[in-house]
Amino acid sequence: MSLVIVGSVGLDTIETRKGQVTEALGGSAVYGALAASNFTKVHLVGVVGDDFPMEHTQLLEKHDIDLEGLYRYPGKTFRWHGRYEEWNHATTLKTELNVFANFSPEIPLSYRKCRSLLLGNIHPDLQLQVLSSVSNYQFVACDTMNYWIGLCPEKVKEVISKVHIVFINEEEIRQFSGQLDIFAAARQLLCLGPECVVVKRGEYGSVVVTRDSYFFAPAYPIAEVIDPTGAGDTFAGGFMGYLANQKEMTMPYIHSAVRYGTVLAALDVGAFSVENIKHTRMDAVMGMVDELIAWTGGERSGL
Amino acid sequence: MSLVIVGSVGLDTIETRKGQVTEALGGSAVYGALAASNFTKVHLVGVVGDDFPMEHTQLLEKHDIDLEGLYRYPGKTFRWHGRYEEWNHATTLKTELNVFANFSPEIPLSYRKCRSLLLGNIHPDLQLQVLSSVSNYQFVACDTMNYWIGLCPEKVKEVISKVHIVFINEEEIRQFSGQLDIFAAARQLLCLGPECVVVKRGEYGSVVVTRDSYFFAPAYPIAEVIDPTGAGDTFAGGFMGYLANQKEMTMPYIHSAVRYGTVLAALDVGAFSVENIKHTRMDAVMGMVDELIAWTGGERSGL
Repeated sequence: MSLVIVGSVGLDTIETRKGQVTEALGGSAVYGALAASNFTKVHLVGVVGDDFPMEHTQLLEKHDIDLEGLYRYPGKTFRWHGRYEEWNHATTLKTELNVFANFSPEIPLSYRKCRSLLLGNIHPDLQLQVLSSVSNYQFVACDTMNYWIGLCPEKVKEVISKVHIVFINEEEIRQFSGQLDIFAAARQLLCLGPECVVVKRGEYGSVVVTRDSYFFAPAYPIAEVIDPTGAGDTFAGGFMGYLANQKEMTMPYIHSAVRYGTVLAALDVGAFSVENIKHTRMDAVMGMVDELIAWTGGERSGL
Repeated sequence: MSLVIVGSVGLDTIETRKGQVTEALGGSAVYGALAASNFTKVHLVGVVGDDFPMEHTQLLEKHDIDLEGLYRYPGKTFRWHGRYEEWNHATTLKTELNVFANFSPEIPLSYRKCRSLLLGNIHPDLQLQVLSSVSNYQFVACDTMNYWIGLCPEKVKEVISKVHIVFINEEEIRQFSGQLDIFAAARQLLCLGPECVVVKRGEYGSVVVTRDSYFFAPAYPIAEVIDPTGAGDTFAGGFMGYLANQKEMTMPYIHSAVRYGTVLAALDVGAFSVENIKHTRMDAVMGMVDELIAWTGGERSGL
């Protein structure tokens, strides 16, 4: 009943139409872990430099996130500087890998009793390294991005063949599969091994494709998008955090996992950095999930 | 318990990646009427020339569609020639208005006992003419297009202020409202008078916005798109045909109306012209609606 999350931990400088922040807490593992911590014990694997502010580690510890796997290397923390001209596309102005360049994601022995794993968007070689060191995990998921699909598609394919759940957006699944139709593309991915492909469709929500069903969920309508950074990681974290507590991955559980991920992602984009997800009120989340159910003519499965 | 549909009746020459057809049956009133005829008695208002093939009127009559309001003017029938490079955008190669140029949509006296009206995408002046000649209709809906919004936005606004339901796509509602956010844009339209704005989102489905709720429905996944012509008209026809039989326009009825419209539109795009919707099997439609409900985690409302 706990979740290991492997990914980046960094300091983000972000410019959007609504303002900007400088060296704010970011990284796929951070967004994912904060989202997942609403549901389950999270064990983080990542790396920071010796300049990483103590307040950030304290924030993660406050969420009972296990930081035994958060390594501190000598040097500077990973930094990313991006600008959003459109909400669904960030332009990277600068990436400083720093300590992340030499990151080796060792899974602490104490994490090996865990049952679930979320491989955030990092080099597929590192994802494969993690996969080779864990076994008997019940729910293993990976995220990826266009960069790795372009650079080393065979490695991405190998990762996909070894997980149960794939998080991928429309552009990425088309790029990976060479197919325009995302449903045919998802079925192509399922043939590699996964049980479940979660296609993220930005403002249109997401669709889960399994061997014998679909689940469509709209995005939760947002009054004002402030900063889309981390939306995908937050979605995946919420999804996997919820799932980590379940016995099986049947459709009713997938429905709930998607809805929680959707609502947390909507909260995330309503503020810069992790401002909105660092103190999530679960009663508010539940209320938003209920709205989402009502707005899709759905029924609460009691899960 | 019957529906008047006003719109174009024409002969379409269509080129898509999957082939082409020449002078096939088309027009917003035709697609709408065939879709609606699965649910209710349809009374059509439109115009054709003296070259309009008898087989087409026979097809409509076979669906028990009342053609008293289908006027036959001397001259040639309205013709449209379009090409789809992308599925969501047709390039018009040629439009021959012919008899449609002088069309005056008179509502036959026998239609005035009807309760519901769908104003297909025609000049807003004609839509206003129809609106001035009917009264006490319970459900009145309009469709429109970017062309009229650009040409005479004030007329479109006047039409919108006089109907209960507006069918409009994302591009059109942004153009009309000047707002990027379709939810804010839809609320702006609601302020003009309608109770319900149905925003069509192409491959992503649709969202209904009312004063106090939303209803999101995905598009039904289609194995192969052959010809998107008439998808919006078919959707609106299915929606209004279903609704025409209901006592009120509460959310559970709107859910069902959207689902029937969605499924009929999916059938429409699977073949050229009206091939797939001219002999709809309702048991197949019901099965697809049930799938759509399952794929959204929904429940059948028994409606």
